[in-house]
Amino acid sequence: MRRRIYLKKKTLAEARELILKSCPWEEFLAPEKVPTRRALARITAEALYAKVSVPAFNAAAMDGIAVRAEKTFSASEYSPLRLKIGEEAFYVNTGEPLPPETDAVIMIEEVHNVSPTEVEIMAPAYPWQHVRKIGEDVVEGELLFPPAHRLAAWDLGALLATGHLEVLVKERPRVAIIPTGDELLPPEEATPELLSAGRTVEFNSTMIAALIEEWGGVAEVFSIVPDRREEIKARLLEAIKDFHLVVVLAGSSAGAKDHTANLIEELGELHLHGVAIMPGKPAVFGLVQGRPVFGAPGYPVSAVIAFEKLMKPAFEAMYGVKIPDRPRVEAYCGRKIPSRPGTREFLRVKVGEVAGRRVFITLKRGAGAITTLSRADALCEIPEEFEGLAAGEKTPLELLRPEKDLSKTALVVGSHDMALDILAEFLKRRAPKYELSLAHVGSLSGILAVRDDLAHFAGTHLFDPESGEFNIPYLERYLKGKPAVLVHFAYREQGLILPKGNPAGVKGLEDIARQGLRFINRQPGAGTRVLFDYYLKKLGLSPRDILGYENEETTHLGVAVAVATGRADVGLGICAAARLLGLDFVPLFRERYDLLVRRDFFEGELWREIAGILSSEEFRRRVASLGGYDVSEMGKILYESG
Amino acid sequence: MRRRIYLKKKTLAEARELILKSCPWEEFLAPEKVPTRRALARITAEALYAKVSVPAFNAAAMDGIAVRAEKTFSASEYSPLRLKIGEEAFYVNTGEPLPPETDAVIMIEEVHNVSPTEVEIMAPAYPWQHVRKIGEDVVEGELLFPPAHRLAAWDLGALLATGHLEVLVKERPRVAIIPTGDELLPPEEATPELLSAGRTVEFNSTMIAALIEEWGGVAEVFSIVPDRREEIKARLLEAIKDFHLVVVLAGSSAGAKDHTANLIEELGELHLHGVAIMPGKPAVFGLVQGRPVFGAPGYPVSAVIAFEKLMKPAFEAMYGVKIPDRPRVEAYCGRKIPSRPGTREFLRVKVGEVAGRRVFITLKRGAGAITTLSRADALCEIPEEFEGLAAGEKTPLELLRPEKDLSKTALVVGSHDMALDILAEFLKRRAPKYELSLAHVGSLSGILAVRDDLAHFAGTHLFDPESGEFNIPYLERYLKGKPAVLVHFAYREQGLILPKGNPAGVKGLEDIARQGLRFINRQPGAGTRVLFDYYLKKLGLSPRDILGYENEETTHLGVAVAVATGRADVGLGICAAARLLGLDFVPLFRERYDLLVRRDFFEGELWREIAGILSSEEFRRRVASLGGYDVSEMGKILYESG
Repeated sequence: MRRRIYLKKKTLAEARELILKSCPWEEFLAPEKVPTRRALARITAEALYAKVSVPAFNAAAMDGIAVRAEKTFSASEYSPLRLKIGEEAFYVNTGEPLPPETDAVIMIEEVHNVSPTEVEIMAPAYPWQHVRKIGEDVVEGELLFPPAHRLAAWDLGALLATGHLEVLVKERPRVAIIPTGDELLPPEEATPELLSAGRTVEFNSTMIAALIEEWGGVAEVFSIVPDRREEIKARLLEAIKDFHLVVVLAGSSAGAKDHTANLIEELGELHLHGVAIMPGKPAVFGLVQGRPVFGAPGYPVSAVIAFEKLMKPAFEAMYGVKIPDRPRVEAYCGRKIPSRPGTREFLRVKVGEVAGRRVFITLKRGAGAITTLSRADALCEIPEEFEGLAAGEKTPLELLRPEKDLSKTALVVGSHDMALDILAEFLKRRAPKYELSLAHVGSLSGILAVRDDLAHFAGTHLFDPESGEFNIPYLERYLKGKPAVLVHFAYREQGLILPKGNPAGVKGLEDIARQGLRFINRQPGAGTRVLFDYYLKKLGLSPRDILGYENEETTHLGVAVAVATGRADVGLGICAAARLLGLDFVPLFRERYDLLVRRDFFEGELWREIAGILSSEEFRRRVASLGGYDVSEMGKILYESG
Repeated sequence: MRRRIYLKKKTLAEARELILKSCPWEEFLAPEKVPTRRALARITAEALYAKVSVPAFNAAAMDGIAVRAEKTFSASEYSPLRLKIGEEAFYVNTGEPLPPETDAVIMIEEVHNVSPTEVEIMAPAYPWQHVRKIGEDVVEGELLFPPAHRLAAWDLGALLATGHLEVLVKERPRVAIIPTGDELLPPEEATPELLSAGRTVEFNSTMIAALIEEWGGVAEVFSIVPDRREEIKARLLEAIKDFHLVVVLAGSSAGAKDHTANLIEELGELHLHGVAIMPGKPAVFGLVQGRPVFGAPGYPVSAVIAFEKLMKPAFEAMYGVKIPDRPRVEAYCGRKIPSRPGTREFLRVKVGEVAGRRVFITLKRGAGAITTLSRADALCEIPEEFEGLAAGEKTPLELLRPEKDLSKTALVVGSHDMALDILAEFLKRRAPKYELSLAHVGSLSGILAVRDDLAHFAGTHLFDPESGEFNIPYLERYLKGKPAVLVHFAYREQGLILPKGNPAGVKGLEDIARQGLRFINRQPGAGTRVLFDYYLKKLGLSPRDILGYENEETTHLGVAVAVATGRADVGLGICAAARLLGLDFVPLFRERYDLLVRRDFFEGELWREIAGILSSEEFRRRVASLGGYDVSEMGKILYESG
């Protein structure tokens, strides 16, 4: 198979600069006349000067009488002055022109009617008092807008007021979008049979077109082109004739069917192949016959992120003005996030409000899951020079939904349990405006997250060897008086995860040491690790007796995978993980899995919904059906602190 | 004349609540089906569930070979495993479906071609390794979006991917806009003659329609209706039949021609007449035949502010979701701003960057000047409970232009001089991307503003009686070592401002005391006040010898007005102010008006443009023509500090 390698990958900043410098973007858009009334958000193509002064006459700025100021100088409280209506004083309403020979307005409240033909005033007016003078707002010939100004609603008013019925603006950027891929189906043609057989609905073009529409451009989506080099080439050459920019969807990677980079190289200049961003890495940019061509990755999230982060600056260059950014807020990171140095990562995150502060946790990272963007409240950008973010670290977020809607997510940061996923699903059905967002960090980190205002509640199953009690001794040690409530969730069975058929015939922990089996451990602080250490000690064994004690995994499933792939002979974990990979399971002990809930959250509406679910028969039955769960005491309050 | 009074004025919060509670907004918009491709930014009218799972098949998440995991468990570096292509191993590209019986993908980089029919692997695969499983993104029946969700670009992708070719969304709100007013002209019919005669271009309808368009609604603008009650009534009754909301422009105040409130009262229920906001006070809201009618003020800025602040929440109620807010930033107030307690004020402000911090100063407050909105960078909201803002106070701003464009304004906070307005005008012509924004606070406050990072430069003309020197002694005392440069601007003549013809025959300061004339003074800290005090002392006079010494004005023009209206017999000020009101002027002394420029600003590009203007013959001639200016040394550097 013919494969290519990426051109040396660029950082996002380098890639943007390459794109901006590659061609004269600022000359792409021709000017066109549009009626001012229809010019909202259009970009001016020339400097605009007022054609008339506003106001065009001296106007009353108050309701009252118009007078000639110098004739009123003698008026005072002691010697009121009478003025003849229609000769020396003229009634005017706000906005009306001043009668000839008048230069001031006296407010109606200060005018006394003394006869049908006369009024009396008690104070003089000074010249131009309560008058909007000719040109007070704008003077004829004054600059209204420089070129490359985006017209706001009120700018249309300023233009109409100063004699501009039409306005010269830059034409909208026209973009051709060419979806490519043998497997793609237009949404209209998708059937369950075709989809199950491996065909995929083509929707990236709709998303990219919508982004272009948001930025003020016009997109034309071509029909799907199969992965054949000559066909893509023909379509590309057709598109560059009539459009300012051509976007080729998919085929931007380095696989055998990825023709975009190669085609640009053949037909023009390839400037960019591969950007150090995630998602969005396999982006391509070059010129064909002087026209910019952008190759977007095939994964939907990659396509959206790469297009937005790389091509928005190009649109701004065409306009000569920035496209309004999404609002940014600062938020605290709810859990540790590792990230690869040298790559700029864009994480989709859920944002919640804990103790009046914004806290976020990440959604799945997979670039194929388009719903992660739909579900996300914000994007979190981790720069190249970072190795990740620490729990509690403050960082800016780019908001994807209105700031006011951010308080509807419960952040759950603690030990993972599959029953929590089911809880999230039930909540979504019961109260769709709320959402549960889960991050798996282990029991102890969960308790600390609740204490440190980084989570609303946490799952925990920490065994205390001294007291033989679960969780509560840890709360006494670590919560430091933070007001919180410990609510029982379920008892779970933990035990040995073994290869299918249990070839070594393991029955208990003793056998691991005795037979010299390779063990796979959990990380320190995990409830399962604490249990393991406790039982080892109870059996009179030391870590040195266990082969592989120092090899760690961070989830139940990780342990099960290690056993399934033969990396280890045995591990400790929950029944459901063993089941999932078709492994054997030897139950050893029952542990208590509880939820530690912040007091303020416990008293709120969202928890009331959750408590309702915990007490429902339907939910309990569903959890029990996972295997290895005892839900008989679910929802019981076990402990309160603070 | 028949006049009405306002219903008791409401606060903005009260008014919003009244409007929101007045009618069932959430029921107004009927659902309609639209193609998903055209549904960007539309609001869902029902909950949307996935009709198919995504992916609909198990798909390769990497390029490589698909295998059955359990058949690979024996592979290791020491005992590589060979797999037959087409039987045990199948080449797959990312996104392609896994062949039947396979459940894992091994990355192509880890596969060794050993023969045309066989590959070799050195490590086992675990089940579902590098596989996007059926439903990994969304499972059929899963909730995608609740009702009242605004569809983003990627949401369209999620809908198409899950089988939604069409989507049920809320119809767009339809709004009728009825402009009223005898004086109004359609922009197309405006001629210089009609405008000078007192007619006004009707453009408020275009601005309100543009706001509605921005919020996702559809506006229909009716033709202009004259100020006749019955005609407005007929048009109103016609409009409420077909629209969700009717907006009557102008006629919302309490004047004789203001029919809106009265008509609503006659035809339905009047809920609101007058809101304690500025601008925007004369707003009206009520129901006619159950339909909401909004009466907007006639002044353009008032109309825009009142409509946006009061009716945006109603649009949000119709949608069931927030309309994205403009971005907000925090900024420091560059000068003291008084504000009336009990009124919520919306100031149009210019924002500049001083020492890396955002600082703002206000534009004109007049509600008639529509260009103040076009020129503004942001809106500053002063709440009802405030008496204003102090210089240096930090406050949030609502941005009207992209944040990145805010660094192009020079903030000039100091003593006022008419030549500075001319400088601003010249800069706009010479370098249209830059702007000068002026605030008049007096010389000493200007020096402090430069020192405290609240201004880029300041005009100052402070005389030091001890040294006989201008400005420099004050800089030594007040700048506290702040790096700054004092640049000479012009010499000005100050003198006595006297009634036309100088009836008392005043020739010098002595005459004021001698003749017992009523004097009008300037505020302490003003350069003119310092001069006056100095010369009094020099003549052996004390403040007690001056009648009216304690009466103060804060501008040259204020002094001139006091003299013109007879409140005082004499004042001290610059020649140009006397000229403007046609008063007499007796020159007394020459003062030095300089510009104090921050060092960092002095070295920047914007100052280079200004320095270019100061050295140009054209600018100097123009300033000299004001009268009383000596510009021969303009631009000379007099002093550097720090």
